[in-house]
This record gives sequence, C-alpha cells and structure tokens, in this order.
Amino acid sequence: MIDTNDSEFLSRIEDKSLLSKVMPGAAAAAMINAGDIIGISGFTPCGYPKITMHELAERMKQTPFQVDIWTGASTGSQIDTELVAVNGVRVRMPYQTNANLRKAINNGQVSYYDLHLSHVAQQVRAGFFTNVKGERVTGPDFAVVEACKIGPNGEIYPTTAIGNSPVYVDTAKKVIVEVNTTQPLGLVGMADIYMRKNPPHCEPIPILHAGDRIGKPYIKCDPSKIVAIVPCDMPDVTRALAPLDDDAEAMGNNLVEFLTNEVKHGRLPENLLPLQSGVGNVANAVIHGLVESRFKNLSVYTEVIQDGMFELIDKDKIDMISGTSLSPSPEGLKRFYDNIEKYNKKIVLRPQEISNNGEVVRRIGVIGMNTALEMDIYGHVNSTHVTGTKLMNGIGGSGDFARNAFLSCFFCHSSAKGGKISAVVPMCSHVDHTEHDTHVFISEQGVADVRGLSPKERAKVIINNVAHPSYRDQLMDYYERAVAACGHSQTPHILPEAFKFHESLAETGDMHFKK
Amino acid sequence: MIDTNDSEFLSRIEDKSLLSKVMPGAAAAAMINAGDIIGISGFTPCGYPKITMHELAERMKQTPFQVDIWTGASTGSQIDTELVAVNGVRVRMPYQTNANLRKAINNGQVSYYDLHLSHVAQQVRAGFFTNVKGERVTGPDFAVVEACKIGPNGEIYPTTAIGNSPVYVDTAKKVIVEVNTTQPLGLVGMADIYMRKNPPHCEPIPILHAGDRIGKPYIKCDPSKIVAIVPCDMPDVTRALAPLDDDAEAMGNNLVEFLTNEVKHGRLPENLLPLQSGVGNVANAVIHGLVESRFKNLSVYTEVIQDGMFELIDKDKIDMISGTSLSPSPEGLKRFYDNIEKYNKKIVLRPQEISNNGEVVRRIGVIGMNTALEMDIYGHVNSTHVTGTKLMNGIGGSGDFARNAFLSCFFCHSSAKGGKISAVVPMCSHVDHTEHDTHVFISEQGVADVRGLSPKERAKVIINNVAHPSYRDQLMDYYERAVAACGHSQTPHILPEAFKFHESLAETGDMHFKK
Repeated sequence: MIDTNDSEFLSRIEDKSLLSKVMPGAAAAAMINAGDIIGISGFTPCGYPKITMHELAERMKQTPFQVDIWTGASTGSQIDTELVAVNGVRVRMPYQTNANLRKAINNGQVSYYDLHLSHVAQQVRAGFFTNVKGERVTGPDFAVVEACKIGPNGEIYPTTAIGNSPVYVDTAKKVIVEVNTTQPLGLVGMADIYMRKNPPHCEPIPILHAGDRIGKPYIKCDPSKIVAIVPCDMPDVTRALAPLDDDAEAMGNNLVEFLTNEVKHGRLPENLLPLQSGVGNVANAVIHGLVESRFKNLSVYTEVIQDGMFELIDKDKIDMISGTSLSPSPEGLKRFYDNIEKYNKKIVLRPQEISNNGEVVRRIGVIGMNTALEMDIYGHVNSTHVTGTKLMNGIGGSGDFARNAFLSCFFCHSSAKGGKISAVVPMCSHVDHTEHDTHVFISEQGVADVRGLSPKERAKVIINNVAHPSYRDQLMDYYERAVAACGHSQTPHILPEAFKFHESLAETGDMHFKK
Repeated sequence: MIDTNDSEFLSRIEDKSLLSKVMPGAAAAAMINAGDIIGISGFTPCGYPKITMHELAERMKQTPFQVDIWTGASTGSQIDTELVAVNGVRVRMPYQTNANLRKAINNGQVSYYDLHLSHVAQQVRAGFFTNVKGERVTGPDFAVVEACKIGPNGEIYPTTAIGNSPVYVDTAKKVIVEVNTTQPLGLVGMADIYMRKNPPHCEPIPILHAGDRIGKPYIKCDPSKIVAIVPCDMPDVTRALAPLDDDAEAMGNNLVEFLTNEVKHGRLPENLLPLQSGVGNVANAVIHGLVESRFKNLSVYTEVIQDGMFELIDKDKIDMISGTSLSPSPEGLKRFYDNIEKYNKKIVLRPQEISNNGEVVRRIGVIGMNTALEMDIYGHVNSTHVTGTKLMNGIGGSGDFARNAFLSCFFCHSSAKGGKISAVVPMCSHVDHTEHDTHVFISEQGVADVRGLSPKERAKVIINNVAHPSYRDQLMDYYERAVAACGHSQTPHILPEAFKFHESLAETGDMHFKK
C-alpha cells in the first residue's frame, strides 16, 4: 500500500500549504463520528474514495457505529459491501446496485430513499434531508472525494466520475481528499464543473450542444475545509459486461431500424439527436447497434459512459460525449487509459446535476434509451421493484431523461429467467415511468411505437410487437376480458386479476399459468 | 347573433386586405372536410372558437362525418358537447373535463390520448401524431382560433387563453379566425407569444422571473393562410366554483402553516418561490389560504388563473402572475373584465409550451400544488383514472410542474362521496405521478412531508397525517400485514390485496370493509 511519503502522491498536491494535512486513511477515518453524514465521490464503481471508507469500516469493526452515506449513485465495495457488512450505514441515498447493500435495504437494515439523480444537489442545498437527529441539514458533515491531483489553491481535480462531488465539497463542513496515483493525470481537463445556485438565483444552463464546456476542470474548494489528504493506489474495480447475445443484437437492430425510419420521414435529423443510454448490458448492446449502423456525427448526452461509447469514438461516429461518469468494463477501462489522449478530447464529464438536467435534456432534444424491469400493456414502466416490493437498484437517472426527452424509448428482453418471467404484464407492480413519459418500446421481438395512441390501441401494439410470443395469448386474454368487463373505460382492467402474472410467479415460479 | 356587417366586428380587423375573408360561421365550417384535423384555441372554457365549431356540429347533423380535435386543454360546450353529441370527433387530445366527452372517451366513441400539456407543441411540430389515414403529420389541417382583433399584417391577438393556438396557427394548412366582440380590447398586451423551435434548434427560454415578457403580444400568421374570419358575440361560458367549505379552508391553513415553517428554517425565501396551482375547487381553496396569509410579494408561474389569483392582486400580495389561460368563475370573469386595466398589468398569458415548460419551472423553482384523485401509502398519485379504469379528466399540466418543481405538493380531501371513498389507498389503481415526484401531501387532516423518507417511513406519515381517521386502521392493518408478509422488501405489498379498497367500493359502494 502506498504510504504518505510516496513522491508521486506528494507531487500531485500542488498546494504545498496542504502538505500538513497528509495522513493515512486510518487517521482520516478516525475523524468521522457516529451520526455523521458522509457525501462521497463516485458514480458506478468509478471515482469513489477507496482507502478512507475501507478504514472507516475497519474502525467500525472495533467500535460499532453508524453514518449516513450520500453518494452520486452506486459506488465500490469498500462502501457498498464493507460498510454494510459492519452495519455501519444508517441511511443511504440516492442509488445503489450492490447485492449486499440491496439485501440490507430490503430487509430494513439500511434506510434508503430513491431520488431522480439530477435533483439531489438542489435538494441537498435546500436542506430537504435530515440527519440522525431528525434535523434538516444543508450539506454533509464530511465530503470524501477521490482526486487525481490537488491544484495550487486547493482545487480538486476529479477522476473517473463527477457525480455529486461538487455539491458535497461545496456544502460539507469538512473535506477529505484521496489522491489516487493509479488515476492518470491525463484525466485532467475532462471534467467540466459548473456550479448551480438554487432558485431564485438560477440562471439558464448555457449548454446548446452536448459537448459544450461551461465550467472549470476542477472542483473549487476552500483549502481550510480540507482536513485530510489521503494517499491511494487502488484502481477502480469496474464490472464486467455480458457478451452480446442474439437477443441483445436484435434489440440494437430494432432500434436502428426504427431510427432510420424516423430520419427517412424527417422526424429526426440525419445525425439523430443527442443520445442517452442507461447503464448495463442491454444499454451497452443498444449502443453497439449504433456502432454497426450507418449513422455518423452522433452526439451523446448521457449519464454513464460504457464501452460502446469508446467503440463509437474509435469508428469516428461521434462528435462529443457528455456524461457524469465512466463505467467501462475492466477491459474498457484499460482501453480508455491506454488511449486517454484520444478519448479525453471527445468526452466531457459533468456534475450529475448538469449531465442529467431536464432543462438541457429538453432543450437539446435527447433521445432517451432506458431499460425497463417490467412494462405493462398500457405503457407504464417499472424500473425499480421486483414484483412491486423488492428494490432492485433504484430509478437512477432514467426519470431525468425519460421525463424530458424528445423521444423516450424503453428497452427490455421480452422474457427473463428462462422464459418464466414476462417483461410485459397486465399492470406494472410498481410504476416509475408513467404512460405519459414513454413513446417507444423495444424488445428483441420488435418495436411498439405508441405515440399518439389511446391506451386500448397501445395495448394491442405492445402485446403483439414487444411481448414474448409465449405470453401473448395470456396478455390478450386479460386485455379482452378487461374490455368486456369494463369496456366503457379508457384503460380497461380487472383489478382482482391485474397482478395474476406476479401471483403465478410467486406460487409456481412461472408467470405462465393455466386458465 | 352578430352579422358580418357589424361595425364593431369589422373595426377589429385592422388588416383590411382580409375583409374579403369575412364570412358567417356556417360558411367557414363548410370548408372543413371529413378526416380533417382541427387545432383549436382555448384552454378551459375560455378563449375557444364558439361559432364555427357550433356550425360544424350543425352541419354534421345533416351529413355525419368526423374530424380530429386537437386543443390546448378542455374547451367549451360547442366542441366538447355539441360535436360529441353528433359523433363528430374521431380523435381528441390532449385534455378534457366535459361529462359528455368523458363518457364518449370511456365508451370508446372518441379515441383520446393524454399528454403532458407542455409537450404537445413540440410533438406536433415533430410529426408524432397521425391523421385518419395513419400518416404522421406535422400540424393540423385547420387552426380555428378566437381573437379579440386582427392586426394590420394579419397578427392574431388572442383572448382569454393562449394554449396551443400559436403552434396550431403556425403549423396548420389553413386558419379560421373568430373575432369575438365580447372579448374586450383591453386584453391586448396581456399575451406574450414566444415561439420555440424544435431540437436541435432550441435556445434557452430567457425567463428568469415569473413575469418576464419574452415574446410578442400577438400570434404571427401568414395572412394568406387565413381562409375565413368569422364574427362572434358569444361570451366565454365559464364554470362556477364551489363555495369554500371548512375542509377546503383547513387545507389552505395546513399549506400556509407548512410554508411558514419552511421560511422560518430558511428553506424558502420570505416571499416563497413562484407558485403553481392546479385547476378546480381544491386549487382555488388553496390559493384562498395564501390570500389570508401574511405572505407578500408573491409570484405565480402556473397554468390556469382562477378567482383566487384576482384576490391576491386585489390584496396587493402579488408581483406577477404567469399562466396560459384565465379560468375564472362567471363572477370572476365579470370582476376581471370590470378591472381589466389593473389585472392586465399583473398577468402574462403564454403558450402552454412556455407556461408549463420544465426548463423554466425548474430554473425559477416553482412550488407545485396539484390535486390528487387518489394517492397511496408510499406516495404515488393517481390524477386521471377513477378505480384505475375510467378517465376522469387527464393529466393536464400537473406532470409538467410536479416533475420539475422545487417542491411538489399534492392536495386532496381525505375522503369523498360522504366518506365512502378514501383518497389514501394501499396502492394507486393508476399512477400518474410517482413517488419520485411527490414531496408533500396535504389534506384537511394534516400534512405529510415525505422528503428524505424511505417508503416504510412514508407509509406511516401518510396514513397518520393525511388519511381520513375512519380509514387509518384499515390502511395500517394492510401496511403491517404487508410488512409481515414481505418485510424483507423496500416497499411491502400484498399484491392480491393491493386493490381491496377498490374492490370493496365496486362490491358494496364503500371502501370501508370488515376484516
């Protein structure tokens, strides 16, 4: 492990007055008290503080206590596994994806609230959230953030994710910076930190094109707030992506065919509009479809930058990519580091308040492409809760984009778990995106373009084009009986049967059932 | 009825080259063909074309045919009753409130789709919607709009509502203008028509304060597109407001108390932030609460301007009011006309694309105050569908505001129909606003401030503070059994029982039931 005398580490602290704050992670972690709120850097397992939070978990093994953890989104195992394993997290917001943390949230060990990711910063500044005493506070006690260097006046140069670091640094009482020597200095310049005030002092966000730079390459920080600078030499531990399968490829092809037709009819420009793509395997497959397409001069205004985006750059199909975080696979991260000068020029990393901001999303006309956990025959989407009860990950930025997109597309495999779960159900068991925020549904089966359709028209298109063939009869049977039972209604349902698919799954392990 | 030689009418047509287009409504209506899409002015029963649409209905009595009706929101009886009675409407979007039209929508006579009102204009320009042939079109065949005068170069000066008139006039093949002599010329100058281009050609909307004027007082129209100018002397027929009752007053008081506490803790400025208020009796009561409060120098950035807003002006509590439409009671309309010079200065009427635009709503930090049809224990809201199936009105602008508000409040009477319907249910039978878009719930019983609460915490606060006392045991019993049945979940539910309140209502006419 790197020590506090490491010359590479020390050379990255340009404000020499701060050298007195250098200490090992254990000493920094010792400053944190029970009940403190910790706002950390990181967004996906990129750019999160690795040493201090590990040492905090170690300390909690000796002396159990709890803190509140505010993040950008999901983070790394030091936070989402280690701190949870020692029962060190009282409250967590606004997003997560970790299996251990998910279990702790669902069983009530961790109190979690799920927020649109672009809204967190404003609500933190406004004092919407409470501490352990139930008092509403306007910032965390500590910001703990990863940096690739500290500038001559305490400027914090972030690494592979921006997330909520700017607001946490700005509003925290004290700041702990981890300078990570595994993060190349070639990252400097990729960040674009634009600080927003709360209403009534907001001005228009001056972004007209996805790649516009409007801020500074660093997070400004009053040096007197920096209480510790911790050396770190642990790399980001990113998640592998699943290999592309036939279904994923079919989804990508369906998207390209749909977009091609929109361009043909003049509803989209030749180079489309700025693309947003969710996180995960489906999202990556969708981007892969565009890599293989004829589209060029594309731009991306998204939250998370995955491997497919590097492919778009390598194939010279992209003008600019805006996001708040990298989230490549381990191979993708290596590819990025190896070609950082090339990718650096094409990528802008922004605070998630800006990367996901509805004002910009709407103005530049983003094509939103998000993943549905389940969807219903009328076009509502569940993104968060398995069978309506168990939290999967969280809404993340999907709502930021879907709500304000020019065109809002949702993707899903038509079935899961070997066909035993249908992605299309009569009624979503939890709604995160309403029928008003969804325009196009795409599965490996096809495309349901529901723009300008009444609910009854939507139902037929969704069942016939997107649902898995083995579920179509069951879905159409529900729909037809609902029409018969309450045909004199805009959105026919038989409430006592609305969740029969889910009930069948709970009883038999299969959403297929006999009449 | 006014005739085409009426001197007051003719004096209001300043572009004398257009005098040749003057004709009675029946002649204008005769130009409309089966299958045409008609985009009309009006938003609530204000500012809608009265003569041409009546004559169109008369014509359809002789020769039945159908047209598509695109509006701003709800309109008057000539459209929503008369045209529907002759089965003259094939498709209707994006909102309505009329009992006859509602029935026709629910029974499938009229195909209706429900849209966020601020999104309509962009989607019309983009060609999202189809005509009777199934072709996606970039505008209506006819725009039929009410004006108080026509300027020297064909400029259309709108009356008591703007709605979608600008986009319909801009994109229609032909334009029919009804010059309504009952609408005072004192209306001139109240409208602020800012035309927006679609992405990728959008610029920031330059509104920094609710009352900023950014456009022109008229709708620009190529005079060659004007095919008819019809005289009209029928006044707006607006809806009466219910008298304030104790419950409404309690809701208003609960709001004022909540806001006062926010100001006290520095979470809102002394003069609050721009207020948005939904339409109807509850909304009007809520505004009345503010009239009686100590708040001053308020501003309003809302969709519809009801009587309460005039009270705010009269009591000198308001800086500026922005909306897209007046919607006063008959007495309120008289009061407005009688004092038009005073009110004119304090009111800006914008296209609904701007009055409801998420970019502005978020920037200026609107306090959203909308009405829930039902809400559930976890904070989802149903605004549109009675028992999940029958369309009531539509989502209107509630989503435009709730999705982007600084603070999103929802109001409801805790029970309805003499106590037989509970506004709070275990699970909403239709979701229009998700848990992510709701911060504060207010009924006559109290306030549930759910900011920063996990779903389980929300449930207790909502049941105890907002639900009607006669339903609290039933709700808490559901919640506690759901926790017991699937306690290891973020959002406990018993799916087979989730709609038991609704099923009881269907079976017994009462949501109360015996265990």
